Amino acid sequence: MGLTIGVDIGGTKIAAGVVDEDGSLVAKTRRKTSASDPGAIQAEVADAVAELRADHDVDAVGVAAAGFVDATSGVVLFAPNLAWRDEPLKDDLTRLIGLPVVIENDANAAAWGEFKFGAAREVDDAVLVTVGTGLGGGIVVDGRVLRGHVGVGGELGHVRMVPDGIRCGCGNRGCWEQYASGNALQREGRELVAKGSAFSARLSELCGGDPDKLRGGMITQAAAEGDPAAVDLLADLGHWLGEGMAQIAAVLDPALFVVGGGVVEAGDLLIGPARAALARQLTGRAHRPVIGIVPAALGNGAGMIGAADLARAAQ
Amino acid sequence: MGLTIGVDIGGTKIAAGVVDEDGSLVAKTRRKTSASDPGAIQAEVADAVAELRADHDVDAVGVAAAGFVDATSGVVLFAPNLAWRDEPLKDDLTRLIGLPVVIENDANAAAWGEFKFGAAREVDDAVLVTVGTGLGGGIVVDGRVLRGHVGVGGELGHVRMVPDGIRCGCGNRGCWEQYASGNALQREGRELVAKGSAFSARLSELCGGDPDKLRGGMITQAAAEGDPAAVDLLADLGHWLGEGMAQIAAVLDPALFVVGGGVVEAGDLLIGPARAALARQLTGRAHRPVIGIVPAALGNGAGMIGAADLARAAQ
Amino acid sequence: MGLTIGVDIGGTKIAAGVVDEDGSLVAKTRRKTSASDPGAIQAEVADAVAELRADHDVDAVGVAAAGFVDATSGVVLFAPNLAWRDEPLKDDLTRLIGLPVVIENDANAAAWGEFKFGAAREVDDAVLVTVGTGLGGGIVVDGRVLRGHVGVGGELGHVRMVPDGIRCGCGNRGCWEQYASGNALQREGRELVAKGSAFSARLSELCGGDPDKLRGGMITQAAAEGDPAAVDLLADLGHWLGEGMAQIAAVLDPALFVVGGGVVEAGDLLIGPARAALARQLTGRAHRPVIGIVPAALGNGAGMIGAADLARAAQ
Amino acid sequence: MGLTIGVDIGGTKIAAGVVDEDGSLVAKTRRKTSASDPGAIQAEVADAVAELRADHDVDAVGVAAAGFVDATSGVVLFAPNLAWRDEPLKDDLTRLIGLPVVIENDANAAAWGEFKFGAAREVDDAVLVTVGTGLGGGIVVDGRVLRGHVGVGGELGHVRMVPDGIRCGCGNRGCWEQYASGNALQREGRELVAKGSAFSARLSELCGGDPDKLRGGMITQAAAEGDPAAVDLLADLGHWLGEGMAQIAAVLDPALFVVGGGVVEAGDLLIGPARAALARQLTGRAHRPVIGIVPAALGNGAGMIGAADLARAAQ
Repeated sequence: MGLTIGVDIGGTKIAAGVVDEDGSLVAKTRRKTSASDPGAIQAEVADAVAELRADHDVDAVGVAAAGFVDATSGVVLFAPNLAWRDEPLKDDLTRLIGLPVVIENDANAAAWGEFKFGAAREVDDAVLVTVGTGLGGGIVVDGRVLRGHVGVGGELGHVRMVPDGIRCGCGNRGCWEQYASGNALQREGRELVAKGSAFSARLSELCGGDPDKLRGGMITQAAAEGDPAAVDLLADLGHWLGEGMAQIAAVLDPALFVVGGGVVEAGDLLIGPARAALARQLTGRAHRPVIGIVPAALGNGAGMIGAADLARAAQ
Repeated sequence: MGLTIGVDIGGTKIAAGVVDEDGSLVAKTRRKTSASDPGAIQAEVADAVAELRADHDVDAVGVAAAGFVDATSGVVLFAPNLAWRDEPLKDDLTRLIGLPVVIENDANAAAWGEFKFGAAREVDDAVLVTVGTGLGGGIVVDGRVLRGHVGVGGELGHVRMVPDGIRCGCGNRGCWEQYASGNALQREGRELVAKGSAFSARLSELCGGDPDKLRGGMITQAAAEGDPAAVDLLADLGHWLGEGMAQIAAVLDPALFVVGGGVVEAGDLLIGPARAALARQLTGRAHRPVIGIVPAALGNGAGMIGAADLARAAQ
Repeated sequence: MGLTIGVDIGGTKIAAGVVDEDGSLVAKTRRKTSASDPGAIQAEVADAVAELRADHDVDAVGVAAAGFVDATSGVVLFAPNLAWRDEPLKDDLTRLIGLPVVIENDANAAAWGEFKFGAAREVDDAVLVTVGTGLGGGIVVDGRVLRGHVGVGGELGHVRMVPDGIRCGCGNRGCWEQYASGNALQREGRELVAKGSAFSARLSELCGGDPDKLRGGMITQAAAEGDPAAVDLLADLGHWLGEGMAQIAAVLDPALFVVGGGVVEAGDLLIGPARAALARQLTGRAHRPVIGIVPAALGNGAGMIGAADLARAAQ
Repeated sequence: MGLTIGVDIGGTKIAAGVVDEDGSLVAKTRRKTSASDPGAIQAEVADAVAELRADHDVDAVGVAAAGFVDATSGVVLFAPNLAWRDEPLKDDLTRLIGLPVVIENDANAAAWGEFKFGAAREVDDAVLVTVGTGLGGGIVVDGRVLRGHVGVGGELGHVRMVPDGIRCGCGNRGCWEQYASGNALQREGRELVAKGSAFSARLSELCGGDPDKLRGGMITQAAAEGDPAAVDLLADLGHWLGEGMAQIAAVLDPALFVVGGGVVEAGDLLIGPARAALARQLTGRAHRPVIGIVPAALGNGAGMIGAADLARAAQ
């Protein structure tokens, strides 16, 4: 079997690409997302696919979307950033496109991409932890994507780290993503800058003196320059990352943790403290090897590439 | 295929039974365990199997053992209650018995038993939480046992609930089994009785006034009689049970939690508070059905029956 | 030896004065500070000194500046409120002024002033705790200023009181000045007013109903009038002051704590609770006399007077 | 000036030695301590000194004793392990011995020994932290012993780390020595062994299965062998050591921390985590060099050697 198309539907844009059997991206295109109009998104996806098919002969389409996805029926139960509620996405797109369509949660698709072609291609059991605005998770167990009963498996960002901890948008308190995410990094950085001390002078400079304008990327940049405040903030994030991984490891015992998302650029400033915390907290550490933590290899394309491959595998 | 034998090796005894294709126990026998003599255990297992084979024609033997088990090689990396360290159990028993042998972690085997023939037989994704002295876990994902990379998956009792919480024997603090286990129930009850207040009068009576003699069974008994202190203690345990299940659900999204172990006799006094806590903490609860919690159906025989069935499936 | 000049460089102004051998201020003048222009500050200091020398014959100049000061070399490593980084202040000023110059951390200079001529003049070992916006410290041990290896000794405001406590501008959490400072008083008062209860009615009245407009001075005023909410807030500050002093006493065993800064006007409403907390927490309290806490005697002039005297002593 | 004698009075024995100008021990002897009889101790000290003087011509005697010592008067206000209360030790011993006598707190004497001849001989400001049964401190500021107003300075073990923390024998809660001492190590180790898990199997073996018989030395031994539980326990102690040092550094800004006492044998297993914690918590870390942590050089003899040198310096 030859080429398939992978589509990644985000909150602001749709990325689509033609992917071959080796996970290589042969061609790609983009559309904007109309977050509030479910029908419009389907039409944009169909249009992007049609554009790619004009030059490539493809056999199937895999779609990655943020949200609770019932992979069997292809229904999106709920999408946090789009207007979908019980949306029969697979049926709609199959009708519009005229090719077999597979729907997958975006974090699962990305985990599959890293598992098949990226940082986890040598192992059978891996967990992808994507540290973006929030913290997302994708799990591969024994060579298969873990989806769970209603497609909500791998919601790692909402495993609780601290009882009565920081309030999370999900309605609970103390969720992992309140401690290990871009938002957490930004919140801690803003709190520090708002103190107005010299310790945060470089961060303050980067946000023009307005704490509300500080972004995670500025912190990562300052840390790369060696700014001690930024280095501390990343180390704290990394520490929580490793602490949470130890809890996930007690459930899943993966061979490897893969860390994706923008903060990965921080490299060892982030992953070093994560490794130390995981090593200290890992269950059964006296009788088992430590679990590795490595950066993701496919970048933003992981979801698209993974979805394309899942579409191929489903044929 | 016809009959297989399941063997459950515990810290003090070995239970073995002949199991048919429907999970029914056709015959059974027992031996004592010599915890400190690895070779003696193998001999006892072989002897029990020989006794059962005298009257039944069996095709394979499945062995369930507490510990870190590499299911592929059949090596027990580490067993908390026995003298095994990197014990090649599969090879040893295959040689002694002369039949195909399968080795499985006991909680995994019990989860498989409940999945195939017991409380979880209607679903594809289930988690067995066994509340005994500690808290053990067995996981079935998409119809298969989750073992993890080195056989340490499903160590649910050591997922952390409370940072810097109660010290656990595993070396960490705040592990789930320090809050939701028979030991936790006993510890809390003893602490209450030691206060010497009227509130714990019935519990104090049951242990002859000596907190150190209070056992979990006395608390369950007093709760069944309606004693408010005992009802509270069980509700606290149930609450922690549900709180932890919500964390596991964020990772695995099972269709069902099955609760095994002695405290299940407490029934709704335990499971009611667990259901309430799970419903309150479940990630995405606004957009997904709640996950059921049911008592285990196979009792102590779950590990033996599950191991026998895994041996059959491996042929 | 006769007269010397003391200069106190603050974040917004420079105060300079001619001081005699008894610590009396013979003449004084002021300049504004250009916080962002290092060279301009030096010029302003030289200009103020020249003005004073027109009428007085002085032998040396002592300069007190907020920051990390290497007293031997006279280099300011870092100043939180000024643009100095590794500023060779002693060399620059000596060249500009043509007199011997001594550079000292401002809190050390103030402690020396109180030790030589003020509230601590009867003892050999004293700690000055200045409760202003933040909390600053100056230490005299056995009749000498404690500077530390790189001039960073006496950073008392950053001794940690509470692990994982309130975020501090220094990058750590739980620092003493987050609990015992004007900023802490204001933060607590604003939080209370924001609750909108009758208990904080007087404070709410003073800030026109807008918590963000509440100032520490309003709380001190209301407390002086007898307002119970304001009295509580000052007592809480005083309590933390005493708790921290007990930790400092375990290290230094001073004969006396001197409290400076604006909140001292609150008198026994502040110092009473501080004395009680220190007495309760003092190490070895069963076998040693309690340590006194007294208000500073020299007010804002302490740094200038102390710096002038250190310049005299260095000749 | 030639030789002096140093005497170290401990809770169970008296060690005395002849020390030359280079801090070398020329001769030594021992006596048992009669803890409950003040007069008997004086007699034993005089007898030990007489024995040493038979072969060596000495000029003065320095005595190091655990307790609150007024170094000027030579009165021991209070000794935790001996029957002394307001004991005029200097006067008594001067009369008995007929030589000039100097009395010093034992931790101060040891700090002086390390400062003059040991690990801190290259610096002017150092803190000796002795991690024995408890945690003791000795401070050298600008080349002089810090004694404090009534001789109680440097009681570092009683600086509070955790409000409402673990109860200390001093009457307070949360003192540093409850987290970073041999007793703390032993308490944590016993708690772990009492859990009866396999993780603590090696520690359990070393204490014969009885948690109450576990000693800190067994933990250090097991850690040296690589036992993961023991390594964790030492790392926790080291972490608290570094956290506390950061607080002391905010007050004193020493050039160096020297760690003495039995646990120093653990080497980098202890000091590595201490360094990491100090680096992360050090006040002003963005604008100053990190402070080194090194093991003590003089071992048990530090107090004796330091006392002898202080006696020489006092002549």
